[in-house]
Amino acid sequence: GDEASAEAAAQRQQSLTKPPGSLGRLEELAIWLAGWQGREMPRLDRITIAVFAGNHGIAERGVSAYPSEVTAQMVANFAAGGAAINQIARLAGAELRVEPIELNRPTRDFTTGPAMDTADFLVALDTGWRAVPEAADLLVVGEMGIANTTVAATLCAALMGGRGVRWAGRGTGVDDAGLVRKRTTIDAALKFHRGLLDDPLGVAAALGGRELAAIAGAVLAARARRIPVLLDGFVATAAVLPLARLAPDILAHCRAGHASAELGHRELLRELDLAPLLDLDMRLGEASGAAVAILLLRAALACHGGMATFAEAGVSGAD
Amino acid sequence: GDEASAEAAAQRQQSLTKPPGSLGRLEELAIWLAGWQGREMPRLDRITIAVFAGNHGIAERGVSAYPSEVTAQMVANFAAGGAAINQIARLAGAELRVEPIELNRPTRDFTTGPAMDTADFLVALDTGWRAVPEAADLLVVGEMGIANTTVAATLCAALMGGRGVRWAGRGTGVDDAGLVRKRTTIDAALKFHRGLLDDPLGVAAALGGRELAAIAGAVLAARARRIPVLLDGFVATAAVLPLARLAPDILAHCRAGHASAELGHRELLRELDLAPLLDLDMRLGEASGAAVAILLLRAALACHGGMATFAEAGVSGAD
Repeated sequence: GDEASAEAAAQRQQSLTKPPGSLGRLEELAIWLAGWQGREMPRLDRITIAVFAGNHGIAERGVSAYPSEVTAQMVANFAAGGAAINQIARLAGAELRVEPIELNRPTRDFTTGPAMDTADFLVALDTGWRAVPEAADLLVVGEMGIANTTVAATLCAALMGGRGVRWAGRGTGVDDAGLVRKRTTIDAALKFHRGLLDDPLGVAAALGGRELAAIAGAVLAARARRIPVLLDGFVATAAVLPLARLAPDILAHCRAGHASAELGHRELLRELDLAPLLDLDMRLGEASGAAVAILLLRAALACHGGMATFAEAGVSGAD
Repeated sequence: GDEASAEAAAQRQQSLTKPPGSLGRLEELAIWLAGWQGREMPRLDRITIAVFAGNHGIAERGVSAYPSEVTAQMVANFAAGGAAINQIARLAGAELRVEPIELNRPTRDFTTGPAMDTADFLVALDTGWRAVPEAADLLVVGEMGIANTTVAATLCAALMGGRGVRWAGRGTGVDDAGLVRKRTTIDAALKFHRGLLDDPLGVAAALGGRELAAIAGAVLAARARRIPVLLDGFVATAAVLPLARLAPDILAHCRAGHASAELGHRELLRELDLAPLLDLDMRLGEASGAAVAILLLRAALACHGGMATFAEAGVSGAD
């Protein structure tokens, strides 16, 4: 971040009519936005919520409670304004941008081959990069893709260790038999790709998905343009794990919007040293948890920009 | 609550285009508001944030980092629009109502006598009752009062057990010597009033404060009028502990807006079976944490009222 702007924002926080530190994370968020936006008084006039959608070969293995057609149906629902993210984006004053990526061409079943070859992976990464505006005050990233909690769990297992039993959660709500199929799928993928697991980008291509690759590309573009980012839940966070394996501080411009109820998300957040802003037992994806967290950023900036200083208000300081 | 309205809201949540339960606490909040407002589609058009202010005899014992004059100075800051709660209330679309209660007549030092006699206590309780509109969609309660974390800690110790060391936190930021003075003050009060500790209302008068009594009165009025309530942090929650001791379900219309960073708040919330909506390390009081939580209620209702059903959107259900 821009250290001078962050420092000026931190000084301003100390002068406002409240005990120092008493707004807790709202103070930290204002300072974080100031640093990345490069101004003492950050703004949230131009917020983009980018939701990427993809389909997955492993859906054929019965790892989701819903059929693959739901990915495209939900993209249509986003376009019609009927999904949760439409309502939350409007409330939060954010522009919603939905990018379906080759929904009619699912990735390959990664238990028997790579999900994507290098060219497919780079196209998806670039789709994410190009979805980020040249200038914005905040980027929020999320996803839609039937079967993609299995993909996210596989990425975590590949890059953090453990097998399916450690990382497979219930996603949209699979039953016990479906949960066993998720674990089996993850374990089969780990075995097939065991020679690849020390190559983060290789893992992201072979064991990932197009919408996850696009999230990684968008987060990289935001970093290049100094745009702060809110990550959504388990899938969106797993999508950037390969980046963190390449460069430890590459996510310094990111905050975790929330802790998902999906198994594995808390552990993944700890691994990435990301403290979630919300913990509401949400597990919907489509950027919904992070979009709710925009409201907290607005509260942080309302205080940062609107409060009187001790001097202005004639309030006595600490004894 | 109104069980038919809550049940209708729960049914609606099941029909919306998302896996059942995937909006987590946002679903529960919509159903809770539906129950207390008595309609399947609850509203948040008329929100009152009531902030009560009082002064405390025990402030003379050096238990706060700030002098007692700050209570009135902050009330003036509220009137001028310069405090954190002014900014958050505007963002959340809520009306702010501030009620200073006899700031020039602090309660008595409760280490050597009762803080309030019965008449004073009832006047303060009634001030809170009368601050609640006849009809509202939501009430948010908070407080301002130099030294009142010591008062709240004393109430907790009196009604939940333990001594000063268990309940005294740093409040606005006392140093180590101030913390020792808080503990000593609490212990002295417990000793002086030891014959009274099985009488919740007696404790609320003798060991409480006017702004805390007013919060209890407002919460009772809201219950009588079926208005749902968001409680702010440690002091506001301690203020309703005596009510819970009188009738276990008396807080069924309340939710905890946030978990404060102040020592003791989490334990108090557990005692009252209240799960906080936010956990942002805030410790400012003046209803600020609960007012931020209004934003979550708005997100809950935006989804509840605005989302398409599976049938409307043509989205397939679970397999």
